[in-house]
Amino acid sequence: MEPYELTLAAASSAIAAGDLSSVELTESVIGQIERHEAKVCAFATLTLEQAREAARQADADIAGAGPRTPLHGIPLGIKDLCDTEGVLSTSSSRTREGRIGSADSAVTARLRGAGGVLLGQTHTHEFAYGVLTPTTHNPWDLSRTPGGSSGGNGAALAARMIMGAVGTDTGGSIRIPSSVNGMAGLKPTFGRVSRRGITPLSWSLDHAGPMARTVTDVALLLQALAGYDPSDPGTADVPVPHYADSLGGDLAGQTLAVPSNWFFDRIEPDVEAAFRSAVSALEAAGATIREVTLPLTETYMAVEYALFTAEASSYHQEALRTKADLFEPDVRALLEAGELVYATDYIRALRARELIKQGWREMFEMDGIDALLAPTLPATAVKTNDPVVHWPDGTDESAIDAYVRASAPGNLTGLPALSVPCGFDRQGLPIGMQIIGRPFDEPGVLRIGSVFEAATDFANRMPGLV
Amino acid sequence: MEPYELTLAAASSAIAAGDLSSVELTESVIGQIERHEAKVCAFATLTLEQAREAARQADADIAGAGPRTPLHGIPLGIKDLCDTEGVLSTSSSRTREGRIGSADSAVTARLRGAGGVLLGQTHTHEFAYGVLTPTTHNPWDLSRTPGGSSGGNGAALAARMIMGAVGTDTGGSIRIPSSVNGMAGLKPTFGRVSRRGITPLSWSLDHAGPMARTVTDVALLLQALAGYDPSDPGTADVPVPHYADSLGGDLAGQTLAVPSNWFFDRIEPDVEAAFRSAVSALEAAGATIREVTLPLTETYMAVEYALFTAEASSYHQEALRTKADLFEPDVRALLEAGELVYATDYIRALRARELIKQGWREMFEMDGIDALLAPTLPATAVKTNDPVVHWPDGTDESAIDAYVRASAPGNLTGLPALSVPCGFDRQGLPIGMQIIGRPFDEPGVLRIGSVFEAATDFANRMPGLV
Repeated sequence: MEPYELTLAAASSAIAAGDLSSVELTESVIGQIERHEAKVCAFATLTLEQAREAARQADADIAGAGPRTPLHGIPLGIKDLCDTEGVLSTSSSRTREGRIGSADSAVTARLRGAGGVLLGQTHTHEFAYGVLTPTTHNPWDLSRTPGGSSGGNGAALAARMIMGAVGTDTGGSIRIPSSVNGMAGLKPTFGRVSRRGITPLSWSLDHAGPMARTVTDVALLLQALAGYDPSDPGTADVPVPHYADSLGGDLAGQTLAVPSNWFFDRIEPDVEAAFRSAVSALEAAGATIREVTLPLTETYMAVEYALFTAEASSYHQEALRTKADLFEPDVRALLEAGELVYATDYIRALRARELIKQGWREMFEMDGIDALLAPTLPATAVKTNDPVVHWPDGTDESAIDAYVRASAPGNLTGLPALSVPCGFDRQGLPIGMQIIGRPFDEPGVLRIGSVFEAATDFANRMPGLV
Repeated sequence: MEPYELTLAAASSAIAAGDLSSVELTESVIGQIERHEAKVCAFATLTLEQAREAARQADADIAGAGPRTPLHGIPLGIKDLCDTEGVLSTSSSRTREGRIGSADSAVTARLRGAGGVLLGQTHTHEFAYGVLTPTTHNPWDLSRTPGGSSGGNGAALAARMIMGAVGTDTGGSIRIPSSVNGMAGLKPTFGRVSRRGITPLSWSLDHAGPMARTVTDVALLLQALAGYDPSDPGTADVPVPHYADSLGGDLAGQTLAVPSNWFFDRIEPDVEAAFRSAVSALEAAGATIREVTLPLTETYMAVEYALFTAEASSYHQEALRTKADLFEPDVRALLEAGELVYATDYIRALRARELIKQGWREMFEMDGIDALLAPTLPATAVKTNDPVVHWPDGTDESAIDAYVRASAPGNLTGLPALSVPCGFDRQGLPIGMQIIGRPFDEPGVLRIGSVFEAATDFANRMPGLV
């Protein structure tokens, strides 16, 4: 087994045991980049020389005092939406060509501080405003989208070109690429991870969080990322537990809910079958499954779109006045549409979001639910040259609508939502399951995810390309 | 001395001592209404028979077990913006003609629960959307405005037709009528008093709070009104202190700030002279006075207006679609203007408000300030038929702009702001001083107000009318 094939947790253990050096691991992963990056195009910017130097430094430090954290010496990626000091940080946008990060974003600083070896900035759909990441190709089928907006992370992880990454999620941008690339990804509770130094898409819906191959790897990354930051007024001053402690065991005494509505209105049969089978696996692991009806579903898309289009256009308005021609046409169109939203509509969306949050809170409380299960997406990866879901009933839906539909509840409610691989469709494309928990119950969703992962083998499959 | 001449605190003591019954007090106050209400027009709805019954009940209860609270048996007014069960609750609007409150608002319920005798619903500028309350006349000069939007409270208190009241304040609507009627009024910290059952004007700027003749009376009312309410998500779960304990004493060790900018850009000379003399009185009471520069003043009016016009129009949009012709022309014009605000502008205003809050927080912290002093308004009551301030330099300013200018900082920052009488201009019209404190430091601002009141005689003067 080559070092790049290890999970983050396994590589970390090998480093701690002295069986593997950060330099060996980093060179192995760089070998993957050399073999596959030309086809996958996951990186906006590679920082291989700095990474090699960081790996050497990590080995020297570890030789002296042992690893500082489980991330010490581990090769990682940073979504290009997050600033990294001294490195091109362009949000994959031509409007920011040549822009060098003047300071580390909070997430960059935390991964670096934990001893991570940063291999580069990974591609995002321009300014995180889309779900396709058109720069980048899905390692499971290069003609298909890696999802987005954190598509570079998803593709780089699947191609074993990094071992962990930080992404952002406003309408699914961590969970979508995790799902379509067969990876694990967590959108934490709103307020759990600081967004300082990350270019906003929609400040009231934006979340930062980890992506990796396994749930354990995600937990190790979250440990480094989580915590209060007074410089992001959105973060909450809530204690950070030790996430690895919550992993494993069984699900006796847990009540997991499966919604009867919304997620199944339109869904590919292979996706639904994989999801139902995953629910059975969790039941076999001791959970009680019960059906629930989600409240106010008719409002989700209107509220999600009103909030993110208006907030994104507010942030980008100056650029729209001075360099609109440098935005990609799809992003420019969305930004111009958002300028036309009236404040009265936006305020109505804010109020509706409060009702949605309240409805979900009551659903969790009244039904005594520990977490809710759902397909991460209703469909697998669409073709890059035809970004449309063709439903069995003959109707079509744009990929952005289909993907965001399943993701939006997590953003609107701010609840933690973990995507884990739960199967493959008949074309061999990965399928994901979403586990949505109570506020700040990342331990709970990670535990459920880890139990599922231990009972199945989906996280170990590798794309044919690799 | 007639009972109606007593302060709320004095009447309360007399009731507790058995020297005065609630029926006697209520009849004395009703006598004032019979003598003056036809000229003053402070009430949208009078509930005298229910009040007489409540007074009899209060006397029976007090005879058995003593007064439940200092408000037990005290005649009070409720701003018509606040619903009262079974009573016309119309926000002084023709769009709500005949509308009966289906349940008590939180503030109505709390005053009633404390044993208050409710004399009726007091006039508001329609839907609290203005500072003139054109239905109502100022007892100090019937040709002048009682201010607004809680103008009915201010006029009824000055005419001794009630002993205390609850108002609301979005851009000064408690402090403006308190100031121009020579009364005390407190806009508490945002989140201190529940707004359940109060018709919103602008939910992110709306505050409910007490108005009365003296600072002690205001403290007694606040005691009943303050507290967390899960049904108003804007309230904060912060312990409620015993406000009367904080009154009196001296100001040794207190640092009070006087701004050098904003409040004095345009101000009537009599108002500035009264304010400067009030500052000297506080200095004589032991306070250290220091000058500060308010941050970001150039943004205050644009941010205040963007937030309240957009939020008001969002709330009233359905009525604007179905009965626009029933709004008063000034309110309709503001509501229609608010419909034209773009979400991007509103979001920019939200972000600017965060910067204003942060700037004030830093000013209080860095300068070690206990409270800030300012004129409540730059001018006294304008003429009803000429609602314009004519500045000594020959320029004019609409009363709404002049009054809101001085009030907006309290709403934008959410800080507690108490207005106390501090003098009279050469026409005999009352002048107010504003005391703005740290978040939830109502005890601090009430203490400063009570020390000032004890050192001066302004709270005891009565309009010639009375």
